[in-house]
Formats: sequence, C-alpha cells, structure tokens
Amino acid sequence: MEELSQAGQQVLESQPFSALLEARLAGLSEGEAVIEVPIREELLQQNGYVHGGVISYAADNALTFAGGSILGPTVLTSEYKINYLRPASGETLVAQASVVHAGKRQAVCRCDVFVAGAGGGETLCAVAQGTIASVAVPEA
Amino acid sequence: MEELSQAGQQVLESQPFSALLEARLAGLSEGEAVIEVPIREELLQQNGYVHGGVISYAADNALTFAGGSILGPTVLTSEYKINYLRPASGETLVAQASVVHAGKRQAVCRCDVFVAGAGGGETLCAVAQGTIASVAVPEA
Amino acid sequence: MEELSQAGQQVLESQPFSALLEARLAGLSEGEAVIEVPIREELLQQNGYVHGGVISYAADNALTFAGGSILGPTVLTSEYKINYLRPASGETLVAQASVVHAGKRQAVCRCDVFVAGAGGGETLCAVAQGTIASVAVPEA
Amino acid sequence: MEELSQAGQQVLESQPFSALLEARLAGLSEGEAVIEVPIREELLQQNGYVHGGVISYAADNALTFAGGSILGPTVLTSEYKINYLRPASGETLVAQASVVHAGKRQAVCRCDVFVAGAGGGETLCAVAQGTIASVAVPEA
Repeated sequence: MEELSQAGQQVLESQPFSALLEARLAGLSEGEAVIEVPIREELLQQNGYVHGGVISYAADNALTFAGGSILGPTVLTSEYKINYLRPASGETLVAQASVVHAGKRQAVCRCDVFVAGAGGGETLCAVAQGTIASVAVPEA
Repeated sequence: MEELSQAGQQVLESQPFSALLEARLAGLSEGEAVIEVPIREELLQQNGYVHGGVISYAADNALTFAGGSILGPTVLTSEYKINYLRPASGETLVAQASVVHAGKRQAVCRCDVFVAGAGGGETLCAVAQGTIASVAVPEA
Repeated sequence: MEELSQAGQQVLESQPFSALLEARLAGLSEGEAVIEVPIREELLQQNGYVHGGVISYAADNALTFAGGSILGPTVLTSEYKINYLRPASGETLVAQASVVHAGKRQAVCRCDVFVAGAGGGETLCAVAQGTIASVAVPEA
Repeated sequence: MEELSQAGQQVLESQPFSALLEARLAGLSEGEAVIEVPIREELLQQNGYVHGGVISYAADNALTFAGGSILGPTVLTSEYKINYLRPASGETLVAQASVVHAGKRQAVCRCDVFVAGAGGGETLCAVAQGTIASVAVPEA
C-alpha cells in the first residue's frame, strides 16, 4: 500500500491546480482515498464559507483517486453529482471517497466531504457520487 | 439589466476563490449567466488539460448566477451534476448557464462549458444540471 | 415507529403505480426506508433483466419514504441521480434508503438497490442520491 | 432513418416493462429519440399526478434510445440524473432526448419530459442528463 500511496502523491503533486489549492493526499488504499484542503481566505465565497468550487474540487479529486486505487493511475472522472448540505467553515476540508463497485474500465464511487474544526470535530458538508473511467492518456 | 449585471459583478468580486481563479462574469441577464476563466498553467491537471475542479467551479458558479438572476442575489447551489465530455485545452473556459424552470425559492438550471481557443472556435467540454436555492444568508 | 410504518403503508397503497408494480414497504423507521418489488416477467427489459425504469422507481420511492420519515408525509423527490452497477436478475428488488442530512424543508438521502436471489444472497445493482422536499400538496 | 426507427420499435416492443406502461417510440433519428406514455390511472401517485417512477422510466428510456441511435442497438443507461419541475397531469407523457456528445463507446444525452394535454399544449415537467454506454449484451 505504501507504493500505492506514493504513486498517488506523485499524481497529486503533478497537478498544478491541486498545488494552487495546497491539497494533500491524506490517505490512499485499495478503494479508498482522502483529500484534504487547508481552508484559507483565498478559498472562500462572499459570506466567509468555503466556496462550492473548492468543495467540488475536493470531492471530484477524491472520487478520482479512489477509482484510480483500483483501476490504475490513468483515470479521470467521467461524471459526478454533489449535494451541498451545510455551509463549510473550519480549518480543513476533508473529502473521503470509496469505491462502491468497480468493473474493468469503470468504477462508481461515493464521497463524503467534511470540515474539521480547531477542536477536532468533523461536520459533514457535502456528499457526492460519480463514475471514474480508466483511460489512455491523451497528449496535451 | 445593467443593474443586474453590476450586482452580479459585485458578488463575483466579493468571492475570494473567484478572484484566485481570475474568473469574470462575462454576461448576466434574466435567466442567463456566463462565467469565463482565463486558462493558465496553475489551473491544469497532470496531463496539461484544465483540471476538472476548475470546470466544476465554472459550471457551479454559472448555475448559481443564472439562478440568482431570477431568484435574487442571496442564492446558493443546492446540488448539481456534471458530465465531462472532452479534455479542456485552450485560452478561455466559458460556462454558459440558463434557467430551465424557476419557482419562488428554487430554480433548476443547465450549463454548457466550452473552451475557446486562440482561433475563436469553441469546443463543448462539459454539461451540467442543478438546483439553485434562495436562502437567507447565514453569518460566518 | 409502528405508527410511522402504518402511515407509510397507507401512502404506498394509495399510489396506483406502486400497486401496478406490486411494491411493498418492507421497512420504515426514522431516517430509513426499504421498498421491495417482486421481480416478474412484466418488469423486465429485452435481455431478461429488471428494466432500469423499475430500479429507478424503487430507488426514487425509497428516497422519498426515507425523507418523509423525517420531514412528514407530504414530501416528494425534487431530484436524484442513479448509477446502475450490474444487470439485475433474481427474485426481489430491494431498495434501501437512508437520510444523510435533513433540514426543515429538505432532506438529502442515499439509496442502495439490491437484488435478492432464491438462495438468500443479495447483489448490489444500483446506487442513488437525491433531495426530498416537504411540500404543500397541490390538488390534482 | 426508417430502418433505424424500425429497429428501435423492435427493441421497445421486446421490453415487457415498456409494454406494461404502453410506451411508444414516437420518434427516432440520429441523435434524437422521443418516448411517449399515455397517462392512465394506473400510472399515478397518491395525489393524482403521474408517478415519478413513470417520468423516470420515460426519461431513462428516451436517453437510452437517443444514445443507441448513435452507438448502436446494444446500449444501456450507465447513469442519469433527473430534476422534477412540476406535478405532471395530462393526456400523454412525452420524453424527448438528444445526444450532446458521443464517443465510440459512450454518449452523454439530455432529456426534456413534457406533459401534453387535451388542448395540445405541452408543459415541461422534468429534465434529465445521463450517460449511455455501448455494451456486449450479457446473457440472462
């Protein structure tokens, strides 16, 4: 699993947008992935909460990494759906995704997005569900 | 409509995450909104395409602004679904959303996300559909 | 809970389409609902599997009843998303839904749809996620 | 196109569940499909409106046929999302789907579901979006 986790770290580090958001791969094992994003001023919306776009990023990427933990590193999110549950405010955004079902070329995954506060408590702020597909990587 | 457009600009400018992404409100009229994001290195994923999180951000925010053009400024996205169609590569990401149906407190909207290239052509790279809700703004 | 379950039964029995499908409310408690549909020839598609429309019906209705167990009896599904995982073949379709988060007027729920076979085993064949809304009932 | 339409009719007629619902393939051309369901008592919910399960069936099947018009006859819906907009009451449920983007093995489609009344007017009652996949047919 150490190997899997290191491969995942390399993929995340090679995503400039993930670097811009200072996202971390906090966990990666077969069928499970955790993406964390430290909450800072630049990631907020007009009312002081984490912008939905950041929550979507975290859910989308956690879904992709969970799928990739089964399907291999060259995967992408085909589609997903997200329901926002509560305004997100706290120290760290934590997106936990797991594979529900995997075939050879596709995996269906679910994701829970929490906010972890200074006191250690976690609040569920969004849930997502989507499809990850194994792909040959197109050249940019 | 000029007033509506100015109110929309103010909301977008007051979103730190939209500023981080250098997003622009390229159009806002009753039932329609266009969000543009200039594509730059920091917004890409590991293969040189625009990161899905950026596309999701643009779709989500365009849906919200389209809904808000009917429901008023204090709205948020309750939920949405997005299908990625093609890898996104070009100069500008353009998310065009329109209201399909609006009630008093909710609007259902659709969004097409294009990439505009140097030559002026546009390529559809994602489609989304979601619900925008009118809310009393909670204090952060 | 007995009361809740009986109220649920009455709602299901008053749905002509649920009667056409011979659907049963196999369980209803606070935040949880189980809808069962006996699989018969009339519910199949062209390859001998349960038609997706039946699976969607079961998921949609289980989501609604789960939401209604918290929000009260006058609810409807605002929206949902479903991923089909495997062809469904067996004796009984079982849709188990639970509330993920409930506010005053809305609940977000998830649903797993299984097929139970003659031997007693269950196979997951679809997963869904959606929003249930409390409504004043419009007169037909 | 006549050939395409006839092939579609055969598929629909070989679906026992579509026969139970008395669904008709009202149109099928490259990238477009229309499924109609005559509204009758048995298809309603407890308040006298068309049951959501019927609307979902129509949307799902129209999406599948639209995708199949491009990808070929052995397709299935991988996933879709639907937003219900208004209670559906009238003479005929009409689901119109079109392909937004098609690759070799998958197509992303959208669907509008209307109710047509006695007077000829149509009311939009639901919108859907989903993925159709080309498959080798598994034996039941």
